[in-house]
Amino acid sequence: MTTDISPRPLRLGIAGLGTVGTGLVKIVQEHAPLLASRAGRPIEIVAVSARAKAKNRGVDLSAYAWEDDPVALAGRADIDVFVELMGGSDGPARRATETAIAAGKDVVTANKALLALHGQALATAAEAAGKVIRFEAAVAGGIPVVKALTEGLAGNEISRVMGVMNGTCNYILTRMESAGLPYETVFQEASDLGYLEADPNLDVGGIDAGHKLALLAAIAFGTQVDFDAVELEGIGSITIEDIRQAADMGYKIKLLGVAQMTGRGLEQRMSPCLVPETSPLGQLQGGTNMVVLEGDAVGQIVLRGAGAGSGPTASAVMADIMDIARGYRVPTFGQPAANLRQARAARAAVAAPYYLRMQLLDKPGALAKVARVLGEAGISIDRMRQYSHEDVAAPVLIVTHKTTRTALEEALVGFEETGVMAGPPVAIRIEAV
Amino acid sequence: MTTDISPRPLRLGIAGLGTVGTGLVKIVQEHAPLLASRAGRPIEIVAVSARAKAKNRGVDLSAYAWEDDPVALAGRADIDVFVELMGGSDGPARRATETAIAAGKDVVTANKALLALHGQALATAAEAAGKVIRFEAAVAGGIPVVKALTEGLAGNEISRVMGVMNGTCNYILTRMESAGLPYETVFQEASDLGYLEADPNLDVGGIDAGHKLALLAAIAFGTQVDFDAVELEGIGSITIEDIRQAADMGYKIKLLGVAQMTGRGLEQRMSPCLVPETSPLGQLQGGTNMVVLEGDAVGQIVLRGAGAGSGPTASAVMADIMDIARGYRVPTFGQPAANLRQARAARAAVAAPYYLRMQLLDKPGALAKVARVLGEAGISIDRMRQYSHEDVAAPVLIVTHKTTRTALEEALVGFEETGVMAGPPVAIRIEAV
Repeated sequence: MTTDISPRPLRLGIAGLGTVGTGLVKIVQEHAPLLASRAGRPIEIVAVSARAKAKNRGVDLSAYAWEDDPVALAGRADIDVFVELMGGSDGPARRATETAIAAGKDVVTANKALLALHGQALATAAEAAGKVIRFEAAVAGGIPVVKALTEGLAGNEISRVMGVMNGTCNYILTRMESAGLPYETVFQEASDLGYLEADPNLDVGGIDAGHKLALLAAIAFGTQVDFDAVELEGIGSITIEDIRQAADMGYKIKLLGVAQMTGRGLEQRMSPCLVPETSPLGQLQGGTNMVVLEGDAVGQIVLRGAGAGSGPTASAVMADIMDIARGYRVPTFGQPAANLRQARAARAAVAAPYYLRMQLLDKPGALAKVARVLGEAGISIDRMRQYSHEDVAAPVLIVTHKTTRTALEEALVGFEETGVMAGPPVAIRIEAV
Repeated sequence: MTTDISPRPLRLGIAGLGTVGTGLVKIVQEHAPLLASRAGRPIEIVAVSARAKAKNRGVDLSAYAWEDDPVALAGRADIDVFVELMGGSDGPARRATETAIAAGKDVVTANKALLALHGQALATAAEAAGKVIRFEAAVAGGIPVVKALTEGLAGNEISRVMGVMNGTCNYILTRMESAGLPYETVFQEASDLGYLEADPNLDVGGIDAGHKLALLAAIAFGTQVDFDAVELEGIGSITIEDIRQAADMGYKIKLLGVAQMTGRGLEQRMSPCLVPETSPLGQLQGGTNMVVLEGDAVGQIVLRGAGAGSGPTASAVMADIMDIARGYRVPTFGQPAANLRQARAARAAVAAPYYLRMQLLDKPGALAKVARVLGEAGISIDRMRQYSHEDVAAPVLIVTHKTTRTALEEALVGFEETGVMAGPPVAIRIEAV
């Protein structure tokens, strides 16, 4: 005898109906039977919340209850999962998420800032309540990288995580190269195209990508998420000359995040780096994202896909919802929050070669002075080029052998003291990828 | 008051102690505390089985019970998960897997052949018993692609799945190009290096990769796994000339699997294809694997990593074990077996451009005859090159515009009838990636 019991639907409350929220509504509406078959139960939207109720979003919301206040939505008795797509590290997004956990809801969020700043507290609260927080959409858009790292590589001790995780920055850098345009022009283009956040420093200053790196580092190394320890350097100082010279030597410049556990602690960097043009990271064009995961058993895994946009981000949100519907309950950062260690921040722990670009005043012995400064700092030269010039200043490029950042900074101070620099030298790390 | 209850360990029985089995034992032994923290419970090996007990495998097996017979291992009362790493579509691997399911064990397997041929029956049996079969290691080694497709893209209708999933074939093809060596020489090299299966046709005939494609297709399209419907073509007919000429026109030759749902049914192909050299697939060198997943919301996701080897494959096996330990229970192919449709096999449904290489006898009007055959088959020419020659036969390359396979086959018959062919022409599909 078969008992015909319809499985209980999973009921969603969605806060935030921007591009991601409406993308999610579309998926739930268009793929209802497919989702139900895959999840083993129907997925239903019960209630939604956004700033302006009247706005036409191109999706039919008439079947859902409306809440003006996301906190009220989060506390509704008739939802199982609170889906937070508002953004912002504090304010309504944080209050609503805390309310949802306290009210016994699971949480799915695309909010990297919220988790990068309050992840440990939220994870602890969720676990105490027996609830989960999932955030696939917060890192690298549609790429299922949180899942790959937390679950797919769960048998590995992770040695390094790298990623190009801000599509806008990669768009700017690749567009500068392909069109031969200066940073300021392409920045303006990106702004006109609506690619930039309201505060563009979130993008070009590396903050947004830094949030994402901090989240991946917590999973990878079993440490409490620590965004403040991410060394941030934006792309604003990268010139078209740097991009050209790097290309000339077989490199591309990327805003690259690197998190690595060292003997001295956890190093987290989000900064412009040179990577070989033939590497998967070097070949990444435009707004696409890429994450590289390195584990002791698996070796190197590379994941590539759209890092933003309605469909890709909603796809990631939907994957989290499907996991909850299927009954998968993993701690927020892959281990119980109480097991996450407070890692010591290791600044500049990992040595690397550097690309140096400088303008030398056309004086006898100028280059010798530069070479002596490097030698005194214990830095040896791999390659050097001085270009012919008609200016008073001669462009000089140097690729060093592996050196510590401490030694590099000593050399940068030394350069200034030579009196032959026509402006501050540029130093960009070359990451072995 | 805290209740101190140690969580119940997950107990493994491992059948097969080759490179993957010993790799798994190493992970469980070396990372025990990390795995326990991530899984929320200890992971323990209870019993193992392999052909030769006495063999030194470089790992300490003394703490585990030994079974000469994997079927006996599968039925042991003291294991929760039967880990099948023996291989082979039938025989002991199949009997032991069936026994494990009947005895109420979850199953983790790296056995692509077993699932490609008996997946539907095994999935049905497992679901009836309330047990899961997981097979991350069966497809593309360490790349968490089964997880990405089944879970990470669970919100997507999948449109196409592609992959370079046999490292040996990709090694042979890229080595032919880089060293300028003929197929036979590199095949022998690969054989000497131990890269080839005991029956090399499993590799170079595309069978092994075809098994993997059939598994991905079942998940992607919600269809019953149907390896017999995979159109197989090996790499044995690819010459160094084809590789050079393809390169000359901006392409690489890959043994590429493509599964695609069309209006006429499910097309599954594993065959040599030309792909643009600048695409991620085109840039794949050596034994590395790559899988490309395309979904309606997420767009294109590319995954890259080691497709074989002890560590990577054991990493994938471990991920499945961790999911079971964490309580995740997804149906084998992502939907209940009863929901999987029996797809109509659509042979040659998707049109594509083709690369044609032929040797024309040096007769007046030879090229005109070839062009007429193409015209009569409704195939238009995108590019053509005739090379200067000192032989009696002139090498001619043609890249067609998009055409159906039916039209192409008509043209190939027509070519023979022209009487100007000095040997059979070669036709290789150009896949849009």
